[in-house]
Amino acid sequence: SIDAERLIGRIRELGEIGRDGDGRLTRLAGSDADKAGRDRFVAWLRQAGLAVAIDRVGNIFGIWASTDNADKKPILIGSHIDTVIDAGIFDGCYGVLSGLAVIEALQAAGFIPARPIAVAAFTNEEGVRYAPDMLGSLVHAGGLSTEAALAISGTDGTQLGAELARIGYAGAQEPGFLKPHAYVELHIEQGPVLEREGLRIGAVENLQGISWQRVTIDGEANHAGTTPMSMRRDAGHAAARVITFLRDEARGSNSPTVATVGCMRFEPDAINVIPSRAGFTVDLRDPDEQRLTAAEAALSGYLDELAAAEQVTITVERLARFAPVAFDRTIVELIEDAARTHGLAARRMTSGAGHDAQMIARVAPSAMIFVPSIGGISHSPRERTNDADLIAGATVLLDVVARLAAA
Amino acid sequence: SIDAERLIGRIRELGEIGRDGDGRLTRLAGSDADKAGRDRFVAWLRQAGLAVAIDRVGNIFGIWASTDNADKKPILIGSHIDTVIDAGIFDGCYGVLSGLAVIEALQAAGFIPARPIAVAAFTNEEGVRYAPDMLGSLVHAGGLSTEAALAISGTDGTQLGAELARIGYAGAQEPGFLKPHAYVELHIEQGPVLEREGLRIGAVENLQGISWQRVTIDGEANHAGTTPMSMRRDAGHAAARVITFLRDEARGSNSPTVATVGCMRFEPDAINVIPSRAGFTVDLRDPDEQRLTAAEAALSGYLDELAAAEQVTITVERLARFAPVAFDRTIVELIEDAARTHGLAARRMTSGAGHDAQMIARVAPSAMIFVPSIGGISHSPRERTNDADLIAGATVLLDVVARLAAA
Ligand SMILES: NC(=O)NCCC(=O)O
Ligand SMILES: NC(=O)NCCC(=O)O
Repeated sequence: SIDAERLIGRIRELGEIGRDGDGRLTRLAGSDADKAGRDRFVAWLRQAGLAVAIDRVGNIFGIWASTDNADKKPILIGSHIDTVIDAGIFDGCYGVLSGLAVIEALQAAGFIPARPIAVAAFTNEEGVRYAPDMLGSLVHAGGLSTEAALAISGTDGTQLGAELARIGYAGAQEPGFLKPHAYVELHIEQGPVLEREGLRIGAVENLQGISWQRVTIDGEANHAGTTPMSMRRDAGHAAARVITFLRDEARGSNSPTVATVGCMRFEPDAINVIPSRAGFTVDLRDPDEQRLTAAEAALSGYLDELAAAEQVTITVERLARFAPVAFDRTIVELIEDAARTHGLAARRMTSGAGHDAQMIARVAPSAMIFVPSIGGISHSPRERTNDADLIAGATVLLDVVARLAAA
Repeated sequence: SIDAERLIGRIRELGEIGRDGDGRLTRLAGSDADKAGRDRFVAWLRQAGLAVAIDRVGNIFGIWASTDNADKKPILIGSHIDTVIDAGIFDGCYGVLSGLAVIEALQAAGFIPARPIAVAAFTNEEGVRYAPDMLGSLVHAGGLSTEAALAISGTDGTQLGAELARIGYAGAQEPGFLKPHAYVELHIEQGPVLEREGLRIGAVENLQGISWQRVTIDGEANHAGTTPMSMRRDAGHAAARVITFLRDEARGSNSPTVATVGCMRFEPDAINVIPSRAGFTVDLRDPDEQRLTAAEAALSGYLDELAAAEQVTITVERLARFAPVAFDRTIVELIEDAARTHGLAARRMTSGAGHDAQMIARVAPSAMIFVPSIGGISHSPRERTNDADLIAGATVLLDVVARLAAA
């Protein structure tokens, strides 16, 4: 069984790496903090006697193989250890460290797997510094070339490839070198469903589609005091209209579409100057591809109207676009069955967040296990999950992996 | 008469000081660029044989006095040489350099003034780095203590006093040491009125009131994908509602109130995180004090409603509040008369922008002269005024100052 104390201890220990002077945890992909987190994880992999492999986009693999099973495709457990800005400690890290804990538990129990078992920490899952999100697993699955990924420039103007080289995690392996027989990812739900329904385990059967865009509105700088309201070409005001449009659309419809403007920048950003430019991001999601496409089209139509009405120029850049994904039925059933075995109330569910499993599902049967998030909060320092739920999730993962690796 | 070539040459020369690699002119108060601009201006003052005095808030004075008139209160001509971000070259500098040109023209003509004539460049008129705007002239007029002014911290966290000391412009004179007999300021209009009406000169008889506030909205960070629209406490969305409210109020009413949100910042500013905080500025103006107060009250009421409706916390900090000011009738009439003498079509008008004259009017009879702004554009690199209009304005200033200094 899972070494609960060690797992919880490691989650907390990794969660201290990358805190700033104000105690805020930020471990963006390719940063110095990411390097420190990776170094700690790799040390734990080596302690467990795993072979460590790092690929050219910085994905880290800890592989438990024997001479008897090395010719077989491995069972892969994965997630990520990069974080958003001012993050919680569970998003990603919980799944990665539980993967390692599962391997350690199987080793301790003298389990002899029919196939190798590996644990992966994929690069830049969050997408906060480099878009798209799930970048490392996307490259692993062949959805983006290594060269294109390494050339991506971040919100701070850095290049992913240069940053990986700088922190010593531009590895030698060709991405995709490890072809999984099956992939399982354990994660906190990050939403309110399991808690609200009093359930312990989510067997994730699908993931919503994700559309990320960067919108730039160009108007005209002018004096805040002298320019009549009717003569303004105010890029900031136009950006505000987009935000209220998205909110009103998403709330007005009875659809589950969610829309978020997370980043915003005004130029020149001066108190008495009408903004000449506003740059912001739009994150649109829906579990249904047609509704997601319709939401994109509605936004696009609104931007055209707005450009004409406000005499501004609007340009849109696509940062990420992933269709909804359905997971492997068999693994989802295995998860439900494992939960039942341990007396843990479970349900099938959709994931609101994007996950590496969404990418790996392109190349291997995949599914995910969720545990409850207190208050449904994530991407926040207030992100929490009870220890008992963390251990319950890892126990279900252990069961599922043991069954998958048995044949 | 005004040395047109030298005046235009100096405006262009000063306009090159503080350009960045992209050619954008930014000479914020207390910056290295401000120091370079001040140094150039002081060198020109000395070339003209003027006595240079610098006070503790960095206001620079070039004084032309003789043993015969040194006991009399001077005629003061002033404006500022700090700029906004990505600025034009005329706002402020035109008035300061014309003041110097007027003194030089009077000297060259052998004019013997009954009183000293002085030219001032006031510190931090723009208010972009340190609020309030018109800070140097406000201190000169006794509206803010020197200590309080020097302690103000800027958008970049610096302190005005420390920055003035750093650039060598924390002078020795006590602010207000120079008590003007009258004050005249020449400035580009920065608005569309003179151009639209085909006029050459504005005799500014009053100035609108200015209300500056910093609004901070605190909501809750959460995941952009997993958080239902109905469960969000989105600070960025609430900020957008304030912008659209201000626009709809200002446009809907038939009043001349103007409202601008020039600065905006989201936290944590990440693509897939619902903003936990939005900080922004509100600039409200109206020539009528009652309407300005009503606009402030309407905003305040809206913020209360919004805080309740969106479950966010809203805090407001006042950055500047100046009542509308009426200028001195006699000087306004002198300006009209001087324009007439030179065959320049003129009108009385209100200033949409704030000016140092608005502060100095508290302690001396004051008025302003405007010249047209092409397209009504200011606080923008596209700010322009024809050379002929620049010289016409300086010529009217020369006449007005000569008449004021004659007795
Ligand atoms: N799980 C998670 O938070 N992933 C980040 C990518 C996203 O969903 O925005
Ligand atoms: N004249 C001018 O642009 N002053 C800056 C202060 C303001 O009006 O915002």
